[in-house]
Amino acid sequence: MRIAVLLYPDFTALDAVGPYEVLSRIPGAEVVFTAARRGPVRTDMTSLAITADAALDEVDSADLLLVPGGPGTEAQLGDPAVLEWVRAVNATTTWTTSVCSGSLILGAAGLLKGRRATSHWGVLDGLPRFGAEPTGTERVVMDGKYATAAGVSAGIDLALTLTGLIAGDATAQAIQLLIEYDPQPPYASGSIAKASPEVIEGAKRLLAA
Amino acid sequence: MRIAVLLYPDFTALDAVGPYEVLSRIPGAEVVFTAARRGPVRTDMTSLAITADAALDEVDSADLLLVPGGPGTEAQLGDPAVLEWVRAVNATTTWTTSVCSGSLILGAAGLLKGRRATSHWGVLDGLPRFGAEPTGTERVVMDGKYATAAGVSAGIDLALTLTGLIAGDATAQAIQLLIEYDPQPPYASGSIAKASPEVIEGAKRLLAA
Repeated sequence: MRIAVLLYPDFTALDAVGPYEVLSRIPGAEVVFTAARRGPVRTDMTSLAITADAALDEVDSADLLLVPGGPGTEAQLGDPAVLEWVRAVNATTTWTTSVCSGSLILGAAGLLKGRRATSHWGVLDGLPRFGAEPTGTERVVMDGKYATAAGVSAGIDLALTLTGLIAGDATAQAIQLLIEYDPQPPYASGSIAKASPEVIEGAKRLLAA
Repeated sequence: MRIAVLLYPDFTALDAVGPYEVLSRIPGAEVVFTAARRGPVRTDMTSLAITADAALDEVDSADLLLVPGGPGTEAQLGDPAVLEWVRAVNATTTWTTSVCSGSLILGAAGLLKGRRATSHWGVLDGLPRFGAEPTGTERVVMDGKYATAAGVSAGIDLALTLTGLIAGDATAQAIQLLIEYDPQPPYASGSIAKASPEVIEGAKRLLAA
């Protein structure tokens, strides 16, 4: 299975690396990190760069496309080369997926019209302008071959769900154990529904900074 | 706060990127990815490389040291330059931390003698040879300034726990909401205690492959 991950400046690292850590372990999976140009791509927090091993024009198809989000998403929404690449690869995929604000890129490429989708809670209201129907209560939203995840860490749940569909429950469960994914967050403030108003304000201040 | 992350060939990406996504968001945090040489370092699944922005001899201190694990750990245990660097930086830290088999590197550097620690379930029995006392039931183990996490994804829980201690509960909770860490794994096989014998065998086969 060929998996293409789109990288761009100021993406959020965990959006891509969480799903990668799961999907790359499916027997037979081949992952290629792809960006406008080959070479290191800086993430939003600037102290981390991930290497793109292929330029967009070197990848014209994939069984699974993964589009991460991040503050850099906005700049991609108006980039015809990126949107055209997403559309072209999407025409070849079995699964087209996103994490966090990556769903806005799928939307801008015209892929989510009339579809249910999700995104990071901070940008969920950006989906309707692309004709998508945002759902704020589900962490992973499947609509046909389109699978979108909520913010950042939700990509791990997305990838395990997809792995079950692609390779079967036994393989997905074995990969869950391999990455010891038995989460025990020390706080219960991981969603808008669970966080206090003070925590939500604190998160918005961090987002703005 | 200066955070140094040790990279080496065949480390596991999520071991480093999970905690990074949390710790880098602490106001004032500066993270430097460090390896034997500057440049891209390939992870265990080979299709991902993360850039080391500093060589070991360019970083001689940190407030927090993070050592990820992975199949490449074993080769580091006999590398005097790496172990000497870990010891030297540890002499300057407020927190010395590891994820997954990274605790074996702390152990080989002589830092875990007589201390409680944890690691990936597959290598937990490697800790006693360094005088550490393995604990297989806790996901995050704190003993003095040494904080070790279980396998791969446990680094996210480690980082949120540390963030609470470093920057306070309110900041840790805001970061948890920023990365929307409200995990909903589609299966309940993320630990040896929860997985079935068949899933454990499946994970061991994947590990060996």
